[in-house]
Parts: sequence; structure tokens; C-alpha cells
Amino acid sequence: MSTDPVISNPEHYSVVFENEFVRVLDYHDFPGDITTPHLHPNSVMCTLSSFRRRLHAGPRVVDVDIQAGAAMWLPAQEHFGENTGATPTHVIFVELKGDAHTVLGGGFGPQ
Amino acid sequence: MSTDPVISNPEHYSVVFENEFVRVLDYHDFPGDITTPHLHPNSVMCTLSSFRRRLHAGPRVVDVDIQAGAAMWLPAQEHFGENTGATPTHVIFVELKGDAHTVLGGGFGPQ
Repeated sequence: MSTDPVISNPEHYSVVFENEFVRVLDYHDFPGDITTPHLHPNSVMCTLSSFRRRLHAGPRVVDVDIQAGAAMWLPAQEHFGENTGATPTHVIFVELKGDAHTVLGGGFGPQ
Repeated sequence: MSTDPVISNPEHYSVVFENEFVRVLDYHDFPGDITTPHLHPNSVMCTLSSFRRRLHAGPRVVDVDIQAGAAMWLPAQEHFGENTGATPTHVIFVELKGDAHTVLGGGFGPQ
């Protein structure tokens, strides 16, 4: 099963544009929605809504409460997430390619 | 005079965070504001407001009318801009570093 979120969770993730340096994704969900496990390369998240989410990576769980208009580093990670708040989640992911794409082993959740 | 917008136009540009792969800037202005000439490396723009701007690069001028929630490619370019609309401009710039940082000679304005 693919861990590319555009393939694993196409109801939530779509490609805005892509070139040799980046792939840019739009993520949208509603309260109660939950994704299947998927992989993010090193990315920058720009939040277009305020939201609360619970992220799961293996046995690890983290709850996040993030305001609209934030820009945060998302180190490469495999996770799944559930919208635990009362509002939709709307986020742009700027996925990095090349040497910047890399590799699991950093932190978990946005930073 | 520096062409780094954080130095040339600190009233509009601030650094949200920076690591080895990216520098992320927050841009904010009000109607009528105009910047001095500055340089953007290859970047992704995420728009947090809808806005109208006039961009100038040497003799070239382009008017843009962009909606909130957009993500667009900004090829490396030196320009200055004026808020020609009736609303503030609020944008996140994800500036790319390394091989992706490069070099003037692409298009002009966001794409």
C-alpha cells in the first residue's frame, strides 16, 4: 500500500503544483476525519485554518493545537492523524525534494 | 544596500524560522505600502489574505490579484511591490536553499 498521502488519502490530499524542487500539497478535512498511515518528506506546513489534531506514529501519540497563519517545520516522518477539534483542518504542505527530501529519523509532529 | 528583504524592508518581512534547507518569511503590509527593491530566491508563496499588488522589475510591471489560500511558485527574482488593493497583504514565503536556492533568470512575479 502506498505511503504517498496523495495516493493513500486522496480525499484529503491533492497536489497544488510540482517542480524539480518541491511538491506542494493541499490538505483538507473535517472534525472526526482520520487518515491512514502515510509518509511526509521534510516539509514546511502553512496553516490556513486553526485546528486540533492527534498524530500517531507507531506507539507515539501527540496532540497539537495550531492557529491559522502559522508556518512550521515538519521533519520527515510516517504518521496518521485525526481531527480531534470542532473545525476543519486546512493546510498547505511544501514538500522538499533532492537532498532536502530526506529521511526518517528527525522529530515527530510539527516543530 | 542589502537586497535581503528582511534587511531592506524589515517593517514588512520577518523570519518565522530557518534551518539548513529553508528560510521562512512572513510578509505583511497595508494598502498603499510599497517596498524597496529586494531579492527572492526560488520560493513557494502561501497567501494568508486576498490582495492586489503591482510588481516592478526594472522596466517590467505586472499586476496580480491573488486569493487567500493559494500556494504559488515564485522563481528567483529581484523586484519591488506596491499594495494597489483595498486590503492588507499577508503572505508566507518558503525560501529554498542549496541547489534549489538559485538564480535569477526564470519568470517574473508568482506563477
